[in-house]
Amino acid sequence: MARARVTMADVARSAGVSPTTASFVLSGRTDMRISDAARRRVQDAARALGYRPNVTARSLRTKSTQTLGLVSDTITTTPYAGEVIRGALEAARARGHLLFITETGGDRAAESGLVNALLDRQVDAVLYAAMFTRHVTPPPELDGRRVVLLNCLAPGFDAPSVVPDEIEAGRTAARVLLGAGHTRGIWSIGGRRALPPTPEGLFAGNERVRGLRDTLRAAGTGLDGVVECAWEAEAGHREVRALLADGRRPRALVCATDRVSFGAYQALAEAGLRVPHDVSVVSFDDQDFASWMRPPLTTLALPHSELGRVAVELILEGGRLDATVHRVPMPLRVRDSVSPPHENG
Amino acid sequence: MARARVTMADVARSAGVSPTTASFVLSGRTDMRISDAARRRVQDAARALGYRPNVTARSLRTKSTQTLGLVSDTITTTPYAGEVIRGALEAARARGHLLFITETGGDRAAESGLVNALLDRQVDAVLYAAMFTRHVTPPPELDGRRVVLLNCLAPGFDAPSVVPDEIEAGRTAARVLLGAGHTRGIWSIGGRRALPPTPEGLFAGNERVRGLRDTLRAAGTGLDGVVECAWEAEAGHREVRALLADGRRPRALVCATDRVSFGAYQALAEAGLRVPHDVSVVSFDDQDFASWMRPPLTTLALPHSELGRVAVELILEGGRLDATVHRVPMPLRVRDSVSPPHENG
Repeated sequence: MARARVTMADVARSAGVSPTTASFVLSGRTDMRISDAARRRVQDAARALGYRPNVTARSLRTKSTQTLGLVSDTITTTPYAGEVIRGALEAARARGHLLFITETGGDRAAESGLVNALLDRQVDAVLYAAMFTRHVTPPPELDGRRVVLLNCLAPGFDAPSVVPDEIEAGRTAARVLLGAGHTRGIWSIGGRRALPPTPEGLFAGNERVRGLRDTLRAAGTGLDGVVECAWEAEAGHREVRALLADGRRPRALVCATDRVSFGAYQALAEAGLRVPHDVSVVSFDDQDFASWMRPPLTTLALPHSELGRVAVELILEGGRLDATVHRVPMPLRVRDSVSPPHENG
Repeated sequence: MARARVTMADVARSAGVSPTTASFVLSGRTDMRISDAARRRVQDAARALGYRPNVTARSLRTKSTQTLGLVSDTITTTPYAGEVIRGALEAARARGHLLFITETGGDRAAESGLVNALLDRQVDAVLYAAMFTRHVTPPPELDGRRVVLLNCLAPGFDAPSVVPDEIEAGRTAARVLLGAGHTRGIWSIGGRRALPPTPEGLFAGNERVRGLRDTLRAAGTGLDGVVECAWEAEAGHREVRALLADGRRPRALVCATDRVSFGAYQALAEAGLRVPHDVSVVSFDDQDFASWMRPPLTTLALPHSELGRVAVELILEGGRLDATVHRVPMPLRVRDSVSPPHENG
């Protein structure tokens, strides 16, 4: 930095005490007799000069840098991914820690370099994060380190995972429709995999459809069909239009993402069908536009901020970290896209 | 971290050389004669043991920690703000630096604490960032430090600013409409301030409307009106509906954000007006949904990633940082929401 750093020696000189006395006062030690007057002079001088302790030097003694590293594939390709960072930042700040944040862009070679760069700076622990929930293989540099897997799973790697509770979200979507009286004409748009298959689809899709089917089956019903497609607005529009052109008459759509719902609304409107009067829609994600759609969209929210918070708290609790999977609930945002089925449909 | 750190002494022992020799090889120094065989043994041992240099200790000698701090008000309340972080991360990584990222949530008291926490870790420089372009007062801890103001301006504070070129974006919006043949019935929806006034509105709104008016005036025309409202979808819907109910017949809308455009589209559709046949729309931001709207929205993109990149490069170029304002262009995304005016309107 441009400005010369105020040292402990500067404070001692200004307070008229020995460097040792200044050091004892400023490090909060009480195992040396120092008069209250001297103590106050040191504290006043430190404040007046803007003295700050040298954490870099102190960390060589304490073996703790009060910093955590966060390595992600990419923080910016998913909407709301910034919320993961925010949740982690807030939890870290609440306990006096900072975060080193870096991202690999999905480049495996870059990843080892970045993990090493973090370890070089002696972070106390590493959050290894994926921006879509998926299975990962952490780099060998992290073996034996203090690690939490954030929004990812690594079978065989001895660290806890923090992921959204997608199965329960699928069950909740089913309950929302059953609760409104829907028992037939229920379609999944987007399905399990996302097509072409994406990391987002592999985990979330499988779990959501599983939860959805389990709960419908327990109520004595099931899905009329599953349309596999890309989890984007354009695919939602195209597939729902094709479904209607095919003579199908869905009563309720469970859309894989709010983007798919966005496209589904467009296709339904083009066919003269009203949401929710003719077709109910329930969705996943809770992107910003979900509440502006007409009608506002009922959706299960990805708990991004909560994922970040839970992961940091696991690390800072200080206990041993074992390979437990922590499932974070996905809150239901009830809006206006679900109603009882219209009988003349 | 849980695993014991491999030290330089471990490497020397494994390679069968003195700690001094190991240190010279591993720090890349050439001012000591070391045989190629010994050099190779040290390098092989370092690799085999997973030796990593201790940056914390080295930084005490070199006075550079190869880390930058980024303090923002909040990285998560604006869509795409993560792109600022990504641009900064990529530029830092390209030059071997990491970023410490933290955010204040707009809390002034927390801000000083966080800035101090960064300075305690001896960051080489600080990016002081706002997530809406606005005027700021950096905390006194940053006086005399190496600082770049990212997406904000601080008159009187001796540091460069990197902001979007909002004036030129306003001019471009005007040129898009003039180029399509629009000379009358042009309305600004959202205006200068955002209502209730927001930091986003104060800077961007003023500059955009100024650029818009300048270019329209130079072409011998002007705005028919400016509707001040919140920069949200709901306000866009409400205000455009009110405008139409009032008997106004706009030919072109310049909407303050894509969210306002989203609401404007809804109000136009309800009134049976088609975009762009009856009313052209040009917008600002380029949020994800802009390309899914029907018709896809022509908009001026906030250059978030570029802001982050430019700010980091200014810092790492190493020159003196003066109070220059760097304006980053806002790219025009031409889609389908602007056409020539329909003559029977």
